[in-house]
Formats: sequence, C-alpha cells, structure tokens
Amino acid sequence: MLLLPFKKIKIRPIGFVERASSDEDVKDKSLVSRIVLKKDLTKALDSIEEFSHVFVIFWLHNILNTGKTVLKVHPRGLAELPLVGIFATRAPVHPNPIGLTLVELVKREGNVLWVKGLDAVNGTPVLDIKPFNGWDVVMSTRVPKWSTKIDK
Amino acid sequence: MLLLPFKKIKIRPIGFVERASSDEDVKDKSLVSRIVLKKDLTKALDSIEEFSHVFVIFWLHNILNTGKTVLKVHPRGLAELPLVGIFATRAPVHPNPIGLTLVELVKREGNVLWVKGLDAVNGTPVLDIKPFNGWDVVMSTRVPKWSTKIDK
Repeated sequence: MLLLPFKKIKIRPIGFVERASSDEDVKDKSLVSRIVLKKDLTKALDSIEEFSHVFVIFWLHNILNTGKTVLKVHPRGLAELPLVGIFATRAPVHPNPIGLTLVELVKREGNVLWVKGLDAVNGTPVLDIKPFNGWDVVMSTRVPKWSTKIDK
Repeated sequence: MLLLPFKKIKIRPIGFVERASSDEDVKDKSLVSRIVLKKDLTKALDSIEEFSHVFVIFWLHNILNTGKTVLKVHPRGLAELPLVGIFATRAPVHPNPIGLTLVELVKREGNVLWVKGLDAVNGTPVLDIKPFNGWDVVMSTRVPKWSTKIDK
C-alpha cells in the first residue's frame, strides 16, 4: 500500500472550549462548559439542539510533545493494573492527542453550545461536533425523526 | 479569547484502511475491513482485543476540498427532509472531514485490526482508535475490568 500521499494532515479548529474557571476539575462530569464556535460557522449548528447528546472531537493542545511515542500505559496511571497498549485506553497521550467525549447538550445560543461532561480544559481547540444518533449504540437518547437511520 | 495560538494542527495518520475490494459498498455495516497500523505502533494495540467495540477516527481524504464551507444540508441528501446545520448531521462534509465510527472489533493480529462496520474507503488514513468503554453510554458491550470507569 502506498503510504506516501498522506504525510501530514492539516486541521483548523472550528472553535474553542470556554470554562467558568481555569481551576475547574475537568473530570467532573456534572460541570457545564461552553463550546464557542467561530462566528462564520453559526448556521452549521442549526437543529443540533434537537439532539440530547453530541460527540465532541477536540485537540489536547496541552499534552506535552516529548517527540517520543507512548506505546503502553497502566490504565489511569494505576500501577496495580496491567500494562496495556495506548489504543486500548482512553489516555490522552495517543500518538495523535485527539479527545473524544460524548456530552449532554444543555442548550445552544447562536454560535455557543453549553455542554455537560466535557473533560477539556479552558481554551481547548475543538475539531468537530457530531450528533449522537442511531449509528452509535442507542440508549435513552433523544434523536429527531429526520436523523434516524433508515435501515436497508 | 485568544484564537491566535492555533491556526493549524498537524496530524500524522497512525495507519490506513484496507478493504477486500475498492468496489465494496462501505455503507454495508456487515462488511469486515482491516486497519493496518504503522509497524512501530504495534505494541500500542496490546489488549485492545479485550474490547468488543472500538471507535475509529479517520480522515475523509476523498472529500473534495472546494474551499467553500458547507453550512447546511438535507440529511442524507433527501430533499424532503428539513435543511439542517452540518453539525447536526453525520454528513462527511464537516469543516474538518473527520470520520467517527463505532465498529465491532473482530480480531487483532499484530499491527492489523479486523473491524466490522467501518464506513471508510480503501486507503483512508486513520487518525486514532479508542476503545468503547463505560465513558460512552454503555449497552451490551464487553469491557475488560481494568478499563471500567471508577465513579466517585
């Protein structure tokens, strides 16, 4: 297989995370934070408020790039747990430090989303937002009719 | 908020999608395809086989960059459905064409994952792989003990 065509991929943030305080415990899933999108993307959020949950894909910009790829870790840094591959964990130090978190969409106002449970620090660049729908194991989520996947 | 520090983010693929045939219908969720990781990342997959499902984050390299941002679409191109914001859909033409798909992990051999249900074409660059665990609405998935989230 030809690996040459894709040496690097360039991505621009669509917006940034704003928290009430930089001191907040971002692991506290009960906290609400804001995703402030670039103003010119405001219309791209229309109807998102019909979803109860969305996936937020973000860039962990504060992960120190040591130039060395971490391959194995103890889950959550707990030495009593087995050493496992980094892709078997949700640790932030993946080769590409991309964050993926399913959050509750509290409200939307213009270019701003209020979300509950986003474990991203103040100023985190957001790369993409996707609604949680029938494509991702469904439970007690709310999904608008027009978004329901039509099975063959 | 200062938007200046993050003009562009550079990402390197961790591997590529290989399909049995380039003619396959990638929307057919019953098909198995392979994710071939870079050899030097092989150890980073250790223990991933203990998960029944993983999220695959990939780059939709074949989306034509017209230089114009699509803000609204009819879901799945169906004109009878309302025009909604692109972030309220899983359409591939998001400002950053990032794919996110939850797939069944069929097997792992060295640096290769066999996955069922990946809607990515042959040669698609893969950016990250994350196990589906207690962080993402749990249903009838299999999750190893050491990965279970410890609630406060």
